[in-house]
Amino acid sequence: MKVIKVNLKERSYNIVIGSGLLQSAGRFIRGLNLGRAAYIITNASIYAKYGRQLSHALKACGFDLKFKLIADSEKSKSLKTAYAIIKDIALFDHNRRVFIIAFGGGVIGDLSGFVASIYKRGIAYVQIPTTLLAQVDSAIGGKTAVDLTEGKNLVGTFYQPRIVLSDVSLLKTLDSRQIKTGLAEVVKYALIKDRKLFDYLEINSRGGLKSNGKLLEFIVARCAAIKAKVVEADEKDTKGIRMILNFGHTLGHAIEAASGYKGYNHGEAVALGMLLALDISEKLGLIKPHLAERIELLIRAIGLPVKIAKKIPLSRIIRAHYRDKKFSGARNRFVLIMGIGKTKIVENIPLQVIKKTLAART
Amino acid sequence: MKVIKVNLKERSYNIVIGSGLLQSAGRFIRGLNLGRAAYIITNASIYAKYGRQLSHALKACGFDLKFKLIADSEKSKSLKTAYAIIKDIALFDHNRRVFIIAFGGGVIGDLSGFVASIYKRGIAYVQIPTTLLAQVDSAIGGKTAVDLTEGKNLVGTFYQPRIVLSDVSLLKTLDSRQIKTGLAEVVKYALIKDRKLFDYLEINSRGGLKSNGKLLEFIVARCAAIKAKVVEADEKDTKGIRMILNFGHTLGHAIEAASGYKGYNHGEAVALGMLLALDISEKLGLIKPHLAERIELLIRAIGLPVKIAKKIPLSRIIRAHYRDKKFSGARNRFVLIMGIGKTKIVENIPLQVIKKTLAART
Repeated sequence: MKVIKVNLKERSYNIVIGSGLLQSAGRFIRGLNLGRAAYIITNASIYAKYGRQLSHALKACGFDLKFKLIADSEKSKSLKTAYAIIKDIALFDHNRRVFIIAFGGGVIGDLSGFVASIYKRGIAYVQIPTTLLAQVDSAIGGKTAVDLTEGKNLVGTFYQPRIVLSDVSLLKTLDSRQIKTGLAEVVKYALIKDRKLFDYLEINSRGGLKSNGKLLEFIVARCAAIKAKVVEADEKDTKGIRMILNFGHTLGHAIEAASGYKGYNHGEAVALGMLLALDISEKLGLIKPHLAERIELLIRAIGLPVKIAKKIPLSRIIRAHYRDKKFSGARNRFVLIMGIGKTKIVENIPLQVIKKTLAART
Repeated sequence: MKVIKVNLKERSYNIVIGSGLLQSAGRFIRGLNLGRAAYIITNASIYAKYGRQLSHALKACGFDLKFKLIADSEKSKSLKTAYAIIKDIALFDHNRRVFIIAFGGGVIGDLSGFVASIYKRGIAYVQIPTTLLAQVDSAIGGKTAVDLTEGKNLVGTFYQPRIVLSDVSLLKTLDSRQIKTGLAEVVKYALIKDRKLFDYLEINSRGGLKSNGKLLEFIVARCAAIKAKVVEADEKDTKGIRMILNFGHTLGHAIEAASGYKGYNHGEAVALGMLLALDISEKLGLIKPHLAERIELLIRAIGLPVKIAKKIPLSRIIRAHYRDKKFSGARNRFVLIMGIGKTKIVENIPLQVIKKTLAART
């Protein structure tokens, strides 16, 4: 078991990483004095697999609880769902101190954090991430969100959880595509901040990552520690530090949007986005071709895509790219790399360069 | 003109109070570097009276702007209205730095602040309060909110404005009932924190308050300074300090709810709530009867109610009282006074005492 502290003054909290943590969830949470009434947001498949276990762990510590199942889909990340949940919590409430447990992947985490941040001007919430993607990334750092038809994550808050319980044994039941999407973010952390993690991934990428609990614990802890440091330095994403977490996401998000959030999942799109950022880094002379090749080899070995599917029109990617909410002022802004673990922010990359880079990746 | 600073580290801001500030709104806002695109939330009657003036003041300073008119009703303080506004802002946005101006009373201020706090994880907003109630109270301190059918202000955030521009000359067009509802909160500030303000109100309460700009500027500045200090000491209402602002609101809110938000407006209900809190203070021996009488005389002189209308069943007030979101743990919690400017928090006042006190005020 590893414990990583996120130091944010009165908003500080621990990320606990280990195998079999779910059984001790009640004890971890009881120590935080969040109240006795736990409102657990999850989906049917997680509930079927682990609902009884969590329920048992919480009841044994005296918690009163209610499970709320939401549809397992990005569509659940809406103001409409948030509204329905809030009305349901108001019924469960009875003037008690209610807190929320986000028990799921990124959709459940983002939505639950948002609801927690606006109900009664903020109630406590706990993250129990069940996917690799959520354990290494979305459950940490307090970015909450729901989507609008006008854009993903357009509504949200910065609101930190009170603890993150990352039980790596929950990852055993993920299918290989879900593991891969998480590994795309792991590669991201390695490339922006952690040469040792990169080496480790290279050595271990040829199979076996999924079944090995120790290995997953190592990876999750390493990524969580990086994210914690970045969030500590730039909690509200105003200082240009947190932006490095966006490596691969600038065009990744655009590819995800252009595929109508169907063709590629988040990690697959980010893998392509990272490769495109590497291509641009190489074009600008920031890295040597052999390094780009080495990274592409790792991404390929993990089983993530390295070419953009022909059916996605490049013009649609470009359009989606210019709607990104993160550009205010500059026309675009890329996180590029100058070597493994070294980033550089570059603004206003000419459209022609982006177009050529995209075309070369099809 | 008076300037009061609210000291909240990186969230600090000024409250500017004076006559004719609206004409300089552009200059005040320009200095804050909030962006060039102003989204102004207001209602039709304020827009008819002052829309052109604000528009002129902002355009003269180079702002691009859009007015959004919402219905002049508590019903506008809903998640539905918030959602509609957010979708409208997303259209106005075009990847620019958009900020919001709340141009109205408490409903507009609470709703606008909430929208600003959740759009793109928080954009800047400015308060230009147009009622006495908003200038002395709701525009300051960052409590944003919308209502649910399950309860008022059940959804919201703590999110500070970037400046509050309180132009007391806007108060000239308020009707006398709106002035009175604001004065109820002014009396509250005097009772909890400011003996001099109380004396001043006593001397001036027999007419003339409305038309006199200097007098209103004095009152607004005095109240704003008190609120600023309380908010600085307990921004998120977790330390039991901000609670004193709730003097008169415990039963006041219940009376407002029991009247279906029709019979009494906020200030009228708070006036009754303060009198009930004084009655309880007297019953508990915290104040002498003649002080309670003196305060009642002031409230009566202002033209606020001192008796609960017969048509409101006391049982409904009691029921609403126990649904108050602020009690977690204790059965109830009252701010009482021990003298003008001195408060005392008392929990778990027996139901029989509350019932008798209510019955004596009908």
